[in-house]
Amino acid sequence: MSKVVTYGEIMLRLSPENYLRFLQCDRYEASFGGAEANVAVSLSNFGVECHFVSKLPEHEIGQAALNALRRYGVKTDRIVRGGERVGIYFCEKGASQRPGKVIYDRAYSAVSQAAPDEYDWNGIFKDADWFHFTGITPALSELTAQTCLDAVRKAKEAGVTVSCDLNFRKKLWTPEKAGKIMGEICRYVDYCIANEEDAKDVFGIEADGSDIYGGKLDRNGYESVAEKLALRFGFKGVAITLRESRSASDNNWSGMLYTGKKAYFSRKYPVHIVDRVGGGDSFGAGLIYALLSDYDPQSAVEFAVASSCLKHSIEGDFNLVSLKEVANLASGDFSGRVQR
Amino acid sequence: MSKVVTYGEIMLRLSPENYLRFLQCDRYEASFGGAEANVAVSLSNFGVECHFVSKLPEHEIGQAALNALRRYGVKTDRIVRGGERVGIYFCEKGASQRPGKVIYDRAYSAVSQAAPDEYDWNGIFKDADWFHFTGITPALSELTAQTCLDAVRKAKEAGVTVSCDLNFRKKLWTPEKAGKIMGEICRYVDYCIANEEDAKDVFGIEADGSDIYGGKLDRNGYESVAEKLALRFGFKGVAITLRESRSASDNNWSGMLYTGKKAYFSRKYPVHIVDRVGGGDSFGAGLIYALLSDYDPQSAVEFAVASSCLKHSIEGDFNLVSLKEVANLASGDFSGRVQR
Amino acid sequence: MSKVVTYGEIMLRLSPENYLRFLQCDRYEASFGGAEANVAVSLSNFGVECHFVSKLPEHEIGQAALNALRRYGVKTDRIVRGGERVGIYFCEKGASQRPGKVIYDRAYSAVSQAAPDEYDWNGIFKDADWFHFTGITPALSELTAQTCLDAVRKAKEAGVTVSCDLNFRKKLWTPEKAGKIMGEICRYVDYCIANEEDAKDVFGIEADGSDIYGGKLDRNGYESVAEKLALRFGFKGVAITLRESRSASDNNWSGMLYTGKKAYFSRKYPVHIVDRVGGGDSFGAGLIYALLSDYDPQSAVEFAVASSCLKHSIEGDFNLVSLKEVANLASGDFSGRVQR
Amino acid sequence: MSKVVTYGEIMLRLSPENYLRFLQCDRYEASFGGAEANVAVSLSNFGVECHFVSKLPEHEIGQAALNALRRYGVKTDRIVRGGERVGIYFCEKGASQRPGKVIYDRAYSAVSQAAPDEYDWNGIFKDADWFHFTGITPALSELTAQTCLDAVRKAKEAGVTVSCDLNFRKKLWTPEKAGKIMGEICRYVDYCIANEEDAKDVFGIEADGSDIYGGKLDRNGYESVAEKLALRFGFKGVAITLRESRSASDNNWSGMLYTGKKAYFSRKYPVHIVDRVGGGDSFGAGLIYALLSDYDPQSAVEFAVASSCLKHSIEGDFNLVSLKEVANLASGDFSGRVQR
Amino acid sequence: MSKVVTYGEIMLRLSPENYLRFLQCDRYEASFGGAEANVAVSLSNFGVECHFVSKLPEHEIGQAALNALRRYGVKTDRIVRGGERVGIYFCEKGASQRPGKVIYDRAYSAVSQAAPDEYDWNGIFKDADWFHFTGITPALSELTAQTCLDAVRKAKEAGVTVSCDLNFRKKLWTPEKAGKIMGEICRYVDYCIANEEDAKDVFGIEADGSDIYGGKLDRNGYESVAEKLALRFGFKGVAITLRESRSASDNNWSGMLYTGKKAYFSRKYPVHIVDRVGGGDSFGAGLIYALLSDYDPQSAVEFAVASSCLKHSIEGDFNLVSLKEVANLASGDFSGRVQR
Amino acid sequence: MSKVVTYGEIMLRLSPENYLRFLQCDRYEASFGGAEANVAVSLSNFGVECHFVSKLPEHEIGQAALNALRRYGVKTDRIVRGGERVGIYFCEKGASQRPGKVIYDRAYSAVSQAAPDEYDWNGIFKDADWFHFTGITPALSELTAQTCLDAVRKAKEAGVTVSCDLNFRKKLWTPEKAGKIMGEICRYVDYCIANEEDAKDVFGIEADGSDIYGGKLDRNGYESVAEKLALRFGFKGVAITLRESRSASDNNWSGMLYTGKKAYFSRKYPVHIVDRVGGGDSFGAGLIYALLSDYDPQSAVEFAVASSCLKHSIEGDFNLVSLKEVANLASGDFSGRVQR
Repeated sequence: MSKVVTYGEIMLRLSPENYLRFLQCDRYEASFGGAEANVAVSLSNFGVECHFVSKLPEHEIGQAALNALRRYGVKTDRIVRGGERVGIYFCEKGASQRPGKVIYDRAYSAVSQAAPDEYDWNGIFKDADWFHFTGITPALSELTAQTCLDAVRKAKEAGVTVSCDLNFRKKLWTPEKAGKIMGEICRYVDYCIANEEDAKDVFGIEADGSDIYGGKLDRNGYESVAEKLALRFGFKGVAITLRESRSASDNNWSGMLYTGKKAYFSRKYPVHIVDRVGGGDSFGAGLIYALLSDYDPQSAVEFAVASSCLKHSIEGDFNLVSLKEVANLASGDFSGRVQR
Repeated sequence: MSKVVTYGEIMLRLSPENYLRFLQCDRYEASFGGAEANVAVSLSNFGVECHFVSKLPEHEIGQAALNALRRYGVKTDRIVRGGERVGIYFCEKGASQRPGKVIYDRAYSAVSQAAPDEYDWNGIFKDADWFHFTGITPALSELTAQTCLDAVRKAKEAGVTVSCDLNFRKKLWTPEKAGKIMGEICRYVDYCIANEEDAKDVFGIEADGSDIYGGKLDRNGYESVAEKLALRFGFKGVAITLRESRSASDNNWSGMLYTGKKAYFSRKYPVHIVDRVGGGDSFGAGLIYALLSDYDPQSAVEFAVASSCLKHSIEGDFNLVSLKEVANLASGDFSGRVQR
Repeated sequence: MSKVVTYGEIMLRLSPENYLRFLQCDRYEASFGGAEANVAVSLSNFGVECHFVSKLPEHEIGQAALNALRRYGVKTDRIVRGGERVGIYFCEKGASQRPGKVIYDRAYSAVSQAAPDEYDWNGIFKDADWFHFTGITPALSELTAQTCLDAVRKAKEAGVTVSCDLNFRKKLWTPEKAGKIMGEICRYVDYCIANEEDAKDVFGIEADGSDIYGGKLDRNGYESVAEKLALRFGFKGVAITLRESRSASDNNWSGMLYTGKKAYFSRKYPVHIVDRVGGGDSFGAGLIYALLSDYDPQSAVEFAVASSCLKHSIEGDFNLVSLKEVANLASGDFSGRVQR
Repeated sequence: MSKVVTYGEIMLRLSPENYLRFLQCDRYEASFGGAEANVAVSLSNFGVECHFVSKLPEHEIGQAALNALRRYGVKTDRIVRGGERVGIYFCEKGASQRPGKVIYDRAYSAVSQAAPDEYDWNGIFKDADWFHFTGITPALSELTAQTCLDAVRKAKEAGVTVSCDLNFRKKLWTPEKAGKIMGEICRYVDYCIANEEDAKDVFGIEADGSDIYGGKLDRNGYESVAEKLALRFGFKGVAITLRESRSASDNNWSGMLYTGKKAYFSRKYPVHIVDRVGGGDSFGAGLIYALLSDYDPQSAVEFAVASSCLKHSIEGDFNLVSLKEVANLASGDFSGRVQR
Repeated sequence: MSKVVTYGEIMLRLSPENYLRFLQCDRYEASFGGAEANVAVSLSNFGVECHFVSKLPEHEIGQAALNALRRYGVKTDRIVRGGERVGIYFCEKGASQRPGKVIYDRAYSAVSQAAPDEYDWNGIFKDADWFHFTGITPALSELTAQTCLDAVRKAKEAGVTVSCDLNFRKKLWTPEKAGKIMGEICRYVDYCIANEEDAKDVFGIEADGSDIYGGKLDRNGYESVAEKLALRFGFKGVAITLRESRSASDNNWSGMLYTGKKAYFSRKYPVHIVDRVGGGDSFGAGLIYALLSDYDPQSAVEFAVASSCLKHSIEGDFNLVSLKEVANLASGDFSGRVQR
Repeated sequence: MSKVVTYGEIMLRLSPENYLRFLQCDRYEASFGGAEANVAVSLSNFGVECHFVSKLPEHEIGQAALNALRRYGVKTDRIVRGGERVGIYFCEKGASQRPGKVIYDRAYSAVSQAAPDEYDWNGIFKDADWFHFTGITPALSELTAQTCLDAVRKAKEAGVTVSCDLNFRKKLWTPEKAGKIMGEICRYVDYCIANEEDAKDVFGIEADGSDIYGGKLDRNGYESVAEKLALRFGFKGVAITLRESRSASDNNWSGMLYTGKKAYFSRKYPVHIVDRVGGGDSFGAGLIYALLSDYDPQSAVEFAVASSCLKHSIEGDFNLVSLKEVANLASGDFSGRVQR
């Protein structure tokens, strides 16, 4: 069994029930999520031994975050305990023409205030096969940026494959700062994952011919973006998720994997959305699983996209699907017929 | 800041959760709503000072109705307290081919039993810019019909612009009675709002070439209806909401504003419905806001339709959207992408 | 008023709320359902006197099952009390590309362990017009298979019309065993109901030219299946439900009634699904009602399909619609407009 | 098996969840209840054939009320259908020093507007053993007062035993009016039930030495009240419930049965309250059951008090306890130990 | 009508449902509260015009906090908008021997980061009669400490009566720091409110003879504490709430008002707790109301204690009781009998 | 850190919300529990490495049971996967004089059908310090009885301390059968735990002078029972939980530990019950923790009783309390004051 390590923040997610707005609700659905935690849970569901590295306060809210991971089999013994707060995000679902809305309240979280030397990367990477994180983590603070750099260096030393989802968040840092820090980190990265906006926001690399907000995507454009990324940083692979937003309720979802030689595009799924948060993360997890399992590129991107297609039908950040369910969809059964 | 006054009934709305039918539920979602209250809340959300005139019992159910308005910034000091009951309506959501269903239990409500002289219209209209009500209010009782007539006369004396949404309800009165009373009231009205059936039901004015139940709409037909209405009553403007019901889950939604010279048609939105009750009211509120803000006719109808398009994605009667959200949609961002 | 008898199992149905998965939920919606109980409730809602025959434990879970039937007017005095357990099924809703999932926990239920002589079929069929059951019941155990055979024989003796929905469940028995037992039972059946897979699974009769999983249906193929079924067993009529699964959220739904002379196909409805479980049962109930009411074949299949189309918009197994609602849809009002 | 008839109103009961106040809640628990309906349900739970006579609208809220009775086995075929509304009552739970609160919205309900000749008392009382109603019913309207009088006369003619719970409601009528009408009706009553205030409020008969609000009860006083009542109206028996309100959360509960010869006092239960509404009705049902079953007076009052003691631990108006549970408590097992 | 001003923080309160622990819940009840906001709501419920001064972010969580106040009639136009976050507190109910638990996540809230000059105290205190705050507010930050000092000085200049609840929170500051800052502020305070621990924690003034944790209170001891406080700061009055914790479910609750001449002790209430958070604040509000209404000292303390006794029976921070309800309890009706 | 192993069944627990009865609810709270699983969770919460041995089906309900353990840190890698069903129990809360009620539906569960050789006891007991199970497990089937015997023998061989809670369940087996099998098993047991009825039901050993249903306990009697048990089986210690049921809402709770020399009685706690299921298991867990930590007998029984006292305030089977919380109560802080 492979061993994967992810590092990042896990937040308390507070969502009004159903389609209620923040201004209406007097009750929040409480769950936990965060880009790298989501990847860890998804991989655990696929049977991979997955360790999540982070810092969480000792109080019950911190413990609840840890328990949420443990419940789905993620290994939590590398989570440092201490600090003051668990980051929070408020998440309101969109519907039809009304966009979803996320309000972050994550500043000063324990993980963002943790000193780089609180993590024992040598121990963490022992026997590990893969290390994954996203561009959100270095954006949290100077401390996490430094920790990310430490981690990728140690990973490389330990012969661990490294993947990074660019995941640009404009509320956390500027494109300039992101470009500088991510540029440095990406030198240690093997596989780069991005959505249709990240490459431009972080590195100024544009998808020629695409109109993100109009929802039209051009395959050649994306291939050229991936090529440029791979050239600049020497990535072994670049994967891009392709979302066409027809409305907050209906999207088209597909993906691409560029291997340095060729771009492999997946099937495109019209998804009727239950919850799209974590869609990109579930793509990442699917891709890591497929690559760890030596899938060929076309199969890998199909697996990753099928996995993340299913995520859109699941409440919360975590992609609670089994290997068998993903394989079934990837193999072409789209009918959604009841399994008895 | 403008000051708007609306007059009408606010009811307790009892809805089974999600898509449960009345015969299944053992719990009701409780909220408050009513045509003119909905307009008041929507305008308050846009930053307009809005006063709601009505009568509510002194007991806690009456107080809860008042609090529901106050919560969203509506001014409630012109609500007379007394009487026996708060009107109630039971509201079951439709889905797919199953229509939504409304059961009214509003007879004998406090506002329907209030004497015309319980309202101080001179005081109410002091410094007011606009007065709005709908055809539901005069339909409640002889007393409210008389009060409406008092109100529009006083409004005219005070130089207040008057708008009326015809809002015909066949359970409340006959077309004959509606035609007679509304005919008298409409002489004091500046802006008339209607849906695709009202003009015919109340005044026998038909939209030639339309097939309401088949969901096909003819632009020329609606323009001619508006023209006839304007001619008969001297309206400065006539606005019509255009709903194409493809099913209880999916409608097309657009609108028209006729200014005496020309009919301005809005963009048409395909809406996946969360809750369509109050759709017409949110159109009215959007229109009043746009006209108070001196929008040109095309922008006004686009704003009104964008506003009411969003209402279809929101639970309850009230249109809880901000100016910025409406402006964003009206400006052409239909993608429903998550706002972080 | 007609008197109908149905015999089978009623189970406790446990469903996670909304679109939650089994692995997420800490609460289950609890309702009751089962193929023949669903038919009984649907017929009771149409005003037919309907008796449900089964066995239920004396404890509160058994009583709650009985009460669920009684609530909707089903006669329960022919339910034998005793035995250990109420069968349970766990039901997770699908969405978009994610299929719904059913986990059965029905082994050893009271009805499956009841001896054939616990039921007084002579008394039960007194004054009865119709007897209905499905292929699930004889699949439960040797005892229920024998009881079914007893029942159809007694029904025939009493001059009661018999209908059977093939309803093959591969978790309960093999095609071979089903073919053998159902083959014997069907000799006493007047009307046979099936979905697109049953005829093949139970009797090896195939719908030529159809691709069930791809969702393409061929009218001629189904007609030939019905013809073959009618020929083999001498059925007076064969009805087939036709489901095209576009996804777990959206299906097309229609049906066919073959009368020995001709195949009558209904209108096809695109349904946006709230809950599709019990869809076939509501078709059966609609058909029985129509046949008891001497509808012509085209009207009968339209009524049955309209009835079951509406079921897809209703939570739970039971089809809680009135005669008037079905008639309204069957007559062609698809708009789903709010009924006030 | 005995056959009992009760006549009165069944209302929709809307209660905030848990201990929320009306001003806080955005959701109501919806159930149904009413004095005579509560008695009917309780008797049905004891295995008695019980018919409820009333009038309910044809719409779904009326149907839901009927279904609520049917669910627990009450016979509903004597319920006339028609009229406009189902009476409603809002019910807020008290706690500790904060009293519970009930807001009635029952005026103009279907049953209160039904003409006396809508009920076929001759048919209703065929084979009946007992007729029960409470002082609430004649208080609803002139029509129901007349209907009550009709009913008790017909009951007497048919040899049916009649019981009446005085149940004075000051919001419905004055003591004067109650005294006059109830005085007339009581001439046909065999068994009279009252609480500690009713006799005084309706007939000016006081329980000497008691201090209702202070919660002190004097056995001799109650005996003398019962004696006076029996003397004035010739009752065969007078039963009185004795509530000592220590707080909204904790009461002492006991009862007395006076048979013309002697007063039999029950054991006194200290109850920690879940829901006390319907406590008196469950006492009435217990008493009727015991008298129909020829219990001796002491056993009868113990059974009635045990039954109603248990009601205080059950949510909603209906006393959902079995004969066995009441018998167990009445026999002296107060420990509340888990039954496995 | 009097005008009262309070200044402080309003937080989002997140509570598991019922008695669930933080580690169990996947849903939070969301409400808003904070010492001074609680006082404002309580006074508004008594009909007093009450203005709450604070700072809240412009996003929807900030708006929801403001709406929660507006709903209950508190004037919110003096709330400055801006800053990043709304303070949060997690609140788990205790039961029996298990203590309730509060986890604060309030650091860096908008109000704690607001500059003193963001508030226009001259405008705020125009026509005001009373200013109230608690020791929590100056403990939030240097900025709020300074703002408090500004406020009390301006209040004194404007002839506004000032009250302060010591409300020591050891997680926010040390006794030393509290003593220093509160010592300075208290020079401008007219009425001081404290619980059984505050005087000692803040000023080292002990209640001789009391054993807080053992729950034994000595009246003379409290009188001497009040006397010392009054002497040191020249308070016009000192009020102390007296809580005897028998368990997390049951407390005894009473209070004392010392006027410089004499200590007036209230009746003592045994309370069965629904939610005790905000108990002290509701005492403060009751006291302010009574003093503004010129109650004599005994009546004032009885009113304040009755008000806060009722708070213990109400969910959330806010004391949603009416004047009439408090008066009724204060007048001696403890029975908790249902009000119909 | 110690390593503890427990073996038994974990069931799906379905409970109506709050105080609803089975006959009312349309929703169940779903959690998991079972005597030995409860002990495992409790010990994990105290920081002990605890392994649960059982068998669970591979489907999602089985997985959910496993996840429930994993969430709280229990090691689940010794759970065999396979079989058909997860045992279920329905659990209705009692209140006041109404007893709680449990309906078991656990027959044919996977663990009860597992062959003894499916468990690798040698591997399981490697490095283990303690093995715990209860009398429920051998009562499930012949197979589990044999497995228990295998387990205790292997435990003894491996030098592992063995504890057993007699936990007699009359629905599972007769006293005769229990006496025979438990008599054999107990020869390998070091510490025996029982409640006030078990010793009599299983071994016919009576607590002289106690009246279980009347709730009166005699210390000498219990001491003599413990002495007899210890003599017959050579137990190192016998612990007895002492419950006095005043009602379903209020119990007194204490315990005794007999060490062969002396009986140590704990403090007695009056508990206001939230959920008493699992109370005995939490006592067992507390006792094991204390003995593993070498507490003296008085401290051990105080810790065990404090731990289980707290359990009564927690929803569900699992005792979700920390070491610190138990220690705090055991040290004498009963006030239940809010921890901020």
